[in-house]
Amino acid sequence: MSDSHSFILTVVCPDAVGIVAAVAGYLTAQEYFIEESTHFGDPDTGTFFMRTRFIPRQQSFSRGTFAAGFDAIASRFGMDWHVYDTRILPRVLIMVSKYDHCLNDLLYRYRTGALRMTIPAIVSNHMDLAGLASWHKVPFFHVPVTPENKAAAEARLMEIAEDSRADLIVLARYMQILSPGLCGKYPGRIINIHHSFLPGFKGAKPYHEAHRRGVKLIGATAHYVTADLDEGPIIEQTVERADHTMSPDDLAAIGRDVESLTLARAVKLQLEHRVFVNGMKTVVLR
Amino acid sequence: MSDSHSFILTVVCPDAVGIVAAVAGYLTAQEYFIEESTHFGDPDTGTFFMRTRFIPRQQSFSRGTFAAGFDAIASRFGMDWHVYDTRILPRVLIMVSKYDHCLNDLLYRYRTGALRMTIPAIVSNHMDLAGLASWHKVPFFHVPVTPENKAAAEARLMEIAEDSRADLIVLARYMQILSPGLCGKYPGRIINIHHSFLPGFKGAKPYHEAHRRGVKLIGATAHYVTADLDEGPIIEQTVERADHTMSPDDLAAIGRDVESLTLARAVKLQLEHRVFVNGMKTVVLR
Amino acid sequence: MSDSHSFILTVVCPDAVGIVAAVAGYLTAQEYFIEESTHFGDPDTGTFFMRTRFIPRQQSFSRGTFAAGFDAIASRFGMDWHVYDTRILPRVLIMVSKYDHCLNDLLYRYRTGALRMTIPAIVSNHMDLAGLASWHKVPFFHVPVTPENKAAAEARLMEIAEDSRADLIVLARYMQILSPGLCGKYPGRIINIHHSFLPGFKGAKPYHEAHRRGVKLIGATAHYVTADLDEGPIIEQTVERADHTMSPDDLAAIGRDVESLTLARAVKLQLEHRVFVNGMKTVVLR
Amino acid sequence: MSDSHSFILTVVCPDAVGIVAAVAGYLTAQEYFIEESTHFGDPDTGTFFMRTRFIPRQQSFSRGTFAAGFDAIASRFGMDWHVYDTRILPRVLIMVSKYDHCLNDLLYRYRTGALRMTIPAIVSNHMDLAGLASWHKVPFFHVPVTPENKAAAEARLMEIAEDSRADLIVLARYMQILSPGLCGKYPGRIINIHHSFLPGFKGAKPYHEAHRRGVKLIGATAHYVTADLDEGPIIEQTVERADHTMSPDDLAAIGRDVESLTLARAVKLQLEHRVFVNGMKTVVLR
Repeated sequence: MSDSHSFILTVVCPDAVGIVAAVAGYLTAQEYFIEESTHFGDPDTGTFFMRTRFIPRQQSFSRGTFAAGFDAIASRFGMDWHVYDTRILPRVLIMVSKYDHCLNDLLYRYRTGALRMTIPAIVSNHMDLAGLASWHKVPFFHVPVTPENKAAAEARLMEIAEDSRADLIVLARYMQILSPGLCGKYPGRIINIHHSFLPGFKGAKPYHEAHRRGVKLIGATAHYVTADLDEGPIIEQTVERADHTMSPDDLAAIGRDVESLTLARAVKLQLEHRVFVNGMKTVVLR
Repeated sequence: MSDSHSFILTVVCPDAVGIVAAVAGYLTAQEYFIEESTHFGDPDTGTFFMRTRFIPRQQSFSRGTFAAGFDAIASRFGMDWHVYDTRILPRVLIMVSKYDHCLNDLLYRYRTGALRMTIPAIVSNHMDLAGLASWHKVPFFHVPVTPENKAAAEARLMEIAEDSRADLIVLARYMQILSPGLCGKYPGRIINIHHSFLPGFKGAKPYHEAHRRGVKLIGATAHYVTADLDEGPIIEQTVERADHTMSPDDLAAIGRDVESLTLARAVKLQLEHRVFVNGMKTVVLR
Repeated sequence: MSDSHSFILTVVCPDAVGIVAAVAGYLTAQEYFIEESTHFGDPDTGTFFMRTRFIPRQQSFSRGTFAAGFDAIASRFGMDWHVYDTRILPRVLIMVSKYDHCLNDLLYRYRTGALRMTIPAIVSNHMDLAGLASWHKVPFFHVPVTPENKAAAEARLMEIAEDSRADLIVLARYMQILSPGLCGKYPGRIINIHHSFLPGFKGAKPYHEAHRRGVKLIGATAHYVTADLDEGPIIEQTVERADHTMSPDDLAAIGRDVESLTLARAVKLQLEHRVFVNGMKTVVLR
Repeated sequence: MSDSHSFILTVVCPDAVGIVAAVAGYLTAQEYFIEESTHFGDPDTGTFFMRTRFIPRQQSFSRGTFAAGFDAIASRFGMDWHVYDTRILPRVLIMVSKYDHCLNDLLYRYRTGALRMTIPAIVSNHMDLAGLASWHKVPFFHVPVTPENKAAAEARLMEIAEDSRADLIVLARYMQILSPGLCGKYPGRIINIHHSFLPGFKGAKPYHEAHRRGVKLIGATAHYVTADLDEGPIIEQTVERADHTMSPDDLAAIGRDVESLTLARAVKLQLEHRVFVNGMKTVVLR
């Protein structure tokens, strides 16, 4: 009997003639049916990005067998590549503080299967959202952060991330800055939601800034976390209309919808292995 | 000396294992560098659609040479295929009546090169827009249509379309219905802009209908023309907000912007060979 | 000590010279400070709609006192009018079947105060969403509907609506049709979310229809329920982009976000007394 | 015989109880029918803004008569007020450099009456767009600007603005910075289109910046010109989706549509006297 579920192959390498042909040729030779395939060669950086979803038609597919055959091609083009079994759900660690709109939205999509992931842990520096986690039967870890215990707290976070074997860390309005050490340990694997349309309104109180400046649209930005605060590669952005009648609280209320939706979209793209870091930007292969 | 401009290959055939590999393999063997490549296999119809943009690296590229080599692959998979030289601009015949917003927008984009096409002729059943055509130095043909001369008028249209060797016919608010004969002669090559968000508000006075029904969004739909009025495959749709204060005239004024933009986008997609008819739907490979 | 919270006055009457002056004059004479005021005179129906939010500055405000003074003006212009104390939260009965995305969204906004309402009861023809209701501490009533018990079930619904003194009934993907009798009992007070951009795709399976027709945008419509199915006055509409790669399930997944947001917006407008029925349309005073 | 066309009254004054009543009372006493009326009291600045459109019902309306009666009310509340006869079209001076997309769009809307204005002059520091102006029969003034002649050029601009009795100056991609002197002479009467979503990407090359930063939406901002470059009060903003495949030129091409539409909307709002400067923000009464 044959496997009939999908695998996803991602490839990053220097751009060259023949990559698509080599990859597609190999998959076809193995009788893998290509369901989806997208690629992009960035003329600025000379880097090639590819994502292919395929279904094996033969009996004996394993990641090991695949690798054994694919390694020659990978070496030839200098590929950084991965193959993912779509039956194995990515493990997503969620970090929050007190705001619950993004967490509520992610848990809803998790519960209904709209986001195909498991959530080994929710971590917070406050206790407020423990009940919400508990109702969804997700373990909740309280890791308070104070000026005094910052290093210890971060060590504890790292421990939880490792113990839960997190593939992805999502900062769903987590109001603490992560250390460069932690950021460096999960490159391209920590997603943050910033409550403004970056690069406008960096910093802590964007809705107040938006109100002060009188902008006519407010937005949210989902981006990878890097050591450089609010400057990580952007994954997704959304905006909504605003007007002069709105107070900072009104803007924040609209912003909550925009933040939730933008973060959910970015997480979904990541879970489907569609997002690639390309210097300070992303390539999103739809 | 080598060619350094792009060619576009489009392929439609029954879906099967190995198509991408065969096409990419052939292009690579010929030292064609693949700039862009997108494909889609429709699980409902079992049809495969592909669009590839490539740059030849060798001296002697010609469409004939390409065909000679590619024919074996095309036969194997039963392909309907075309290769387009992007230096040769598509010839677009524009048909209008009295409304000028779409024509003005198309001519502007034509003049600035945003739409890469030539316009061999503008045809109208009225004289109103002759001046606009003339300022853009495009030949204007007046073909009046009356209940009595309908067949003769259509014959004249057909003649102009043929004489101008039109690759594409764009109905930019042309207020006459084309005969099934003319539609059948240019399948997937006549684009119409309908001033509503189809399938809502078919028929002649959609803004009055939208006003009567009190909708909160109005839209426009660019679609291929088939013998079945307002039911051709949809290429692009856009909407804009409306509210209770707006009269049918106000809705029409907003609608003019939406229509112009929607039609321009559809024409651009078509000029770049991104749109494929798939039964009563389209596949748009971006 | 004076009241410092807001009241909302709504007025509907035949259009005439002097209405705004009379209302504003009365409010000012009573030392009520006008925070917001919007009105609209529909030239088609000759009907005038007004919404004013004001803060009493004097000690003794009561709805009775207000009425005593305002009655003369109301009689003069033939007004249908109401004054609402914004401290008293509207009572909203929610009806659902098995889909939970709209309910989850409404309950989240209820819990966080984004929707200022109380929910005396959630009614469903299935048991599936009892747990969700219970977690939010909202009474859940199971009223199964079968071809045989339709009249009895509807009588039970009516009873629950009356017992819970519902100001508003929200059909959050309730998959049964209400009888004309029930509709007639709550004119302009039952809101339904239809999962398409009306008037396109009326009926039961709009995402399948949208897929079949190949539309490039999908939408949702919040409207008042009348005896005429899917033809009630439209309150709010939203759309999201779709493309050829999406299955009916994919469209439905996107649709869930659009439905939730559209319904939440419509309910918020209603809770703020901004929506007026105007024949088969609505006037929404923002 | 009575006048049957509309007048627009705008009022700005310190917020207080009774303003709406006083204005509406006066209009009613004079038998003016109020078609539209919107107001906003800014709680932050304590300033009240009002716009009313009305139709006189009596024989002898004149701005002088109106003023004679209205002055007492205006004095009582400390009003800055204006009344505009909608038959008299505002005079709009347009300034451009070499980019023609905004000018083309404005002239099209001018020609079709979608923007109700006269254009006494188009001024440019280049000759490129003289033909476009000429085809629309609008006088074109060439005022070259060099580092050496900056003061003389500005004096010439001022002269043209005065001679043409401009009510409004529109910078439709005019690539020179106006002196504080000229800005100060037309406060709230010079509109610029900035080709980014301010406050992100101030400065001269926003599409290159947007490309470098990898944003997923690009935008345009129409704002009043003040001495503080790109910091004037924002009137309107629009965005459009972007992705990783787009070069700076591609972003600019999309941007041209966004800029044209955003500027046209801002000019329309201004022509209808809906925009008020409120410190560093605007109030837009729709």
